[in-house]
Amino acid sequence: MNVSIINIGDELLLGQVVNTNASSMSKMLVSAGMDVKEIAVVGDRREEIANALCRLEATSDAILVTGGLGPTKDDITKQVLCDFFHSHLIEDQTALDNVRRLFAIRGFELTPVNRAQALVPECCQVLNNDLGTAPCMWFQADNGKVVVSMPGVPFEMEWLMQNRVVPKLQQHFNAEHIINKNLLVQGIGESFFSDLVEPWELALPKCIRLAYLPQAGMLKLRLTARGNNRQTLQDAIDKAVEHLYPIAGQYIVGEDCETLAELAHKLLTDKGMTLATAESCTGGAIASLFTAQAGASHYFRGGIVAYSNDIKERTLGVKHSTLEQHGAVSEQTARQMVEGVRQLMDSDFAIATTGIAGPDGGTPEKPVGTVWIAVASRTHTEAALLNFPGRRRQQNIERSTNQALAMLIKAIVN
Amino acid sequence: MNVSIINIGDELLLGQVVNTNASSMSKMLVSAGMDVKEIAVVGDRREEIANALCRLEATSDAILVTGGLGPTKDDITKQVLCDFFHSHLIEDQTALDNVRRLFAIRGFELTPVNRAQALVPECCQVLNNDLGTAPCMWFQADNGKVVVSMPGVPFEMEWLMQNRVVPKLQQHFNAEHIINKNLLVQGIGESFFSDLVEPWELALPKCIRLAYLPQAGMLKLRLTARGNNRQTLQDAIDKAVEHLYPIAGQYIVGEDCETLAELAHKLLTDKGMTLATAESCTGGAIASLFTAQAGASHYFRGGIVAYSNDIKERTLGVKHSTLEQHGAVSEQTARQMVEGVRQLMDSDFAIATTGIAGPDGGTPEKPVGTVWIAVASRTHTEAALLNFPGRRRQQNIERSTNQALAMLIKAIVN
Repeated sequence: MNVSIINIGDELLLGQVVNTNASSMSKMLVSAGMDVKEIAVVGDRREEIANALCRLEATSDAILVTGGLGPTKDDITKQVLCDFFHSHLIEDQTALDNVRRLFAIRGFELTPVNRAQALVPECCQVLNNDLGTAPCMWFQADNGKVVVSMPGVPFEMEWLMQNRVVPKLQQHFNAEHIINKNLLVQGIGESFFSDLVEPWELALPKCIRLAYLPQAGMLKLRLTARGNNRQTLQDAIDKAVEHLYPIAGQYIVGEDCETLAELAHKLLTDKGMTLATAESCTGGAIASLFTAQAGASHYFRGGIVAYSNDIKERTLGVKHSTLEQHGAVSEQTARQMVEGVRQLMDSDFAIATTGIAGPDGGTPEKPVGTVWIAVASRTHTEAALLNFPGRRRQQNIERSTNQALAMLIKAIVN
Repeated sequence: MNVSIINIGDELLLGQVVNTNASSMSKMLVSAGMDVKEIAVVGDRREEIANALCRLEATSDAILVTGGLGPTKDDITKQVLCDFFHSHLIEDQTALDNVRRLFAIRGFELTPVNRAQALVPECCQVLNNDLGTAPCMWFQADNGKVVVSMPGVPFEMEWLMQNRVVPKLQQHFNAEHIINKNLLVQGIGESFFSDLVEPWELALPKCIRLAYLPQAGMLKLRLTARGNNRQTLQDAIDKAVEHLYPIAGQYIVGEDCETLAELAHKLLTDKGMTLATAESCTGGAIASLFTAQAGASHYFRGGIVAYSNDIKERTLGVKHSTLEQHGAVSEQTARQMVEGVRQLMDSDFAIATTGIAGPDGGTPEKPVGTVWIAVASRTHTEAALLNFPGRRRQQNIERSTNQALAMLIKAIVN
């Protein structure tokens, strides 16, 4: 079963908004055993939306459309859907009641602009959008194909997908099984890893596809199995993973996680251990990766973003003489930061980062990309020097973050 | 001049990677005066890539392709380009020298897998990729249309776009002028703002298009002017903005910035003022938004992520009795946090957040979405209570962040 996605919005073509909708929709469809054939991003123009609909209707069983349903004047999706299905707009009572309900909750008065959100093509079925005023519309063509139009606001779309659209698609079609397995690989480059596992890769059964997903400082390996029998697929995946460990197990830091932060979160939660952070060059990025995950308060004690030197002294107890002798970007400073924050927060583990993220601020001895990372437990402190080749600030922050998380994971596991 | 983008990769259709390439490419093309017609995302399959190429070549002047050039086995873009241009693979000396150079820098030995990266279709021109081993390939059809293939690794693609592809496209085509103007709007919902400015919107000249880009807790208004005379466009934009202020100026917090963090960064830098943060529910998100920007070290002193109560006491000097009497999520705690961190870090301004981000952790008196934000200067402290309706953690963190930044901006400006 093939699904295609159309994301509508000039803001997407202008690059002013990152299209996170496409990835979150795909993820939900794939988990539900459906296959995403194509994602098309088009502007707020009738002709372009109509063309994409016509084209994808020929190749896909269902088309999911987001965007163009807001109350403002740049939104025209409904008109296009009317034309496409030879229908016309009517005021839908369910949609109107929903708009009224949401305005009552917020204590606002209903404006004519908002009342117009209850207008929908007559031929569609309205799926109630509990979180927003824009309606979700389900269209079914005579040949059984389906078009669904949803608002582009991410949290409304996600709620609608999960509670309305995906269940109804599963019911309408008979979806194939897909099983994904992720392995997080760290400490080896993509091409070296590829060479190492080549014989294993060539011996994989036909039902399994392999993909390499390199990220800053790490590699995600994804095995995807498709077929009709869930148990057969699961067995094939299990066997493939079992055979991989003797070959490349030393580089595999975790399974079934999308990110190192997720893996560290699971490990700390399961073991009931606590964490604190002291960040200079990563500037709060590590703390925010942990605190973005629900349940972080069970293990995350707190963090210090010690950006200037005197803050490193004042809050973390880094010695003035250390900073003068060795500088802020040094093994000594990293160790004092990590031990300082671990004691201050009385945590089981701590991470510290200090480095030069760039693009400026480097010196001949310590160029941009020089980063010290330290990880401490109650009994042991480990420090590592990293030399990233690039001058890109965001990339150096991400790489430092991933290296620090990988070091933490190793410390927790050992 | 129309450009279309094809982003290749199963990982994009599986939703495992967010397609940031599409937005960063679009942004660069638009700034260079080019028009992005469509973005197509397809899987690592020959037929789908070939179909997208054929289709978009008919409607676009240029097609930019990313992905499918890595050394691993799931990458097939080059084969498709050979078929499309009736060419065949040859080893390109420039590309091979580049692979050798990069391996020498890293001190690695060249593997056969990596040597294969220097194979390119004979009919293309290789544009040197200074940052990576995958080549950038420029194809020119007899009818003048252009296809460019780039690696999907974001920082390599961005560097290639900026230094190789966009300049060459500008030279090849004669691009139209586009001027964008962003206004950041805060403190009013999209539909109310739309009603307020309707007469102004209807009176906008034909060359200007308006778009509403709602984000968590704020609204970005974008005016786009297109035409052949840059000065005429600039005058039209200036006049439109001038006319908007008397109508809605009270809601406009800034111009020419993509985000509130960027605006606050500019203001603090220009005024030479310093900042510190004390975050509970935002967990480092505010600090990391500042420190992600180059030059933050000029004004950002540091931050405390005070996640657990005893850390609020120990590091920020929040009184034990305050936490007992009023709780961590209270005006009193927020005020003590912000004043504590401002004094500790000796900064001109400070921000503090304390709240319940969700999805769990709420009580009847303080449900999920209850957030106190405080902003302090050397002479004055302001605190505000927010009640966000949703239970989504990430959204509540983003909304809290934007509200805190808006409050900071007002404090700096006043």
